[in-house]
Amino acid sequence: MNSRGCIVLFSGGLDSTTLLYYVLKGRKPEDVKALSVIYGQRHLREIECAKETCKKLGVEHQIVELHLEKLLDNSALIDHGKKLPEEHYTHESQKVTVVPGRNQMMISIAVAWADNIGAKKVYYAAHANDRAIYKDCRYPFVNALSRASRLGTDNEVEVVAPFVNKYKSELVKIGTELGVAFALTWSCYKGGKKACGLCGTCQERVEAFKKNGLKDPLPYEIEVDWSGK
Amino acid sequence: MNSRGCIVLFSGGLDSTTLLYYVLKGRKPEDVKALSVIYGQRHLREIECAKETCKKLGVEHQIVELHLEKLLDNSALIDHGKKLPEEHYTHESQKVTVVPGRNQMMISIAVAWADNIGAKKVYYAAHANDRAIYKDCRYPFVNALSRASRLGTDNEVEVVAPFVNKYKSELVKIGTELGVAFALTWSCYKGGKKACGLCGTCQERVEAFKKNGLKDPLPYEIEVDWSGK
Repeated sequence: MNSRGCIVLFSGGLDSTTLLYYVLKGRKPEDVKALSVIYGQRHLREIECAKETCKKLGVEHQIVELHLEKLLDNSALIDHGKKLPEEHYTHESQKVTVVPGRNQMMISIAVAWADNIGAKKVYYAAHANDRAIYKDCRYPFVNALSRASRLGTDNEVEVVAPFVNKYKSELVKIGTELGVAFALTWSCYKGGKKACGLCGTCQERVEAFKKNGLKDPLPYEIEVDWSGK
Repeated sequence: MNSRGCIVLFSGGLDSTTLLYYVLKGRKPEDVKALSVIYGQRHLREIECAKETCKKLGVEHQIVELHLEKLLDNSALIDHGKKLPEEHYTHESQKVTVVPGRNQMMISIAVAWADNIGAKKVYYAAHANDRAIYKDCRYPFVNALSRASRLGTDNEVEVVAPFVNKYKSELVKIGTELGVAFALTWSCYKGGKKACGLCGTCQERVEAFKKNGLKDPLPYEIEVDWSGK
């Protein structure tokens, strides 16, 4: 793999799909690989989106399955008996959606793969909306983990989060410019047939489209008013 | 879990078994949990030792199995077709035993578990002999990963490697003082019925006992001269 070789941590959600398109700009598909991690989340629908998108873009896609249910039973994303909050995505109640140490684990698997194949960078799609609730989406964390990864690998693999200071509405703008197929991305934590429109991540997604004066091509279970900002 | 609660990354080898005894000194068994990770290594025998030791010490033991064979095919520990080197453990040829990014992945899983249960520290048994070949056993790596873990978790979980500046011979000394049952620890990379006595890690283990004027209680396939230093 050449020096432009990289791995994108790729859930199939709006953020990491936009990141995949972003990273592919100026790179050949064979220099980019995508990694999805199944960690017990209820919204497995995003993995199906991830497969479709990689096929469409000609990018190698690996899926790793972790069985950590016994270790990580405090998150509503993993414990399907817990109720998902329907407050705003920055509200304290959203803390139940934190999966402890999730990003560090997933990034570290991507770093290991990168080191194995000689790729120099691992990209992940942390962005500014995530900051309020998720500590592992903030710049100081990314920076420290990148340092650990560089120090711990033969290839001095870096961890890069180019959207860490951008809001989700800016990602929708970037994604629109890059021609992202948003209908092939999934955000809703509930993982039903349509997006629920009520959980924190649905509210966030709707808000991001509305701020751009756009309508999300994804079907929603509830009637969404796309007119206001 | 109280503030003395911690997790020991525990392979069942000599180093992490000594660490487990070390961490238990002054703590109740219920404040210490052990995590073993199966990552495709050929020396699965160590996991059996790990189970026995935890039972003996009354420590909760969790075993996580990772299926990363497709991602990490460059290591002789995972690709069982590759020949294991029989040079000294500091020799360049031992690089084939590096599993890319292994320690960062394993530590990160332990950090996630710690954060889930409210434990404050993750211990791992990197020591000074490992420095020559394994970048992820050096202090700067431990320090950077600890920083990332503190920043990325609600419980500000620290990563601690108390043996990072000690040689394996010093671990044998500490372990002897703590009453470690060395016969219940496994080091050999080959994972046969007896230790091969020839692979890098066997040589290292033999050397560590001899430096203390001790005989390893483990049976070896070859005749070992325990008299010299």
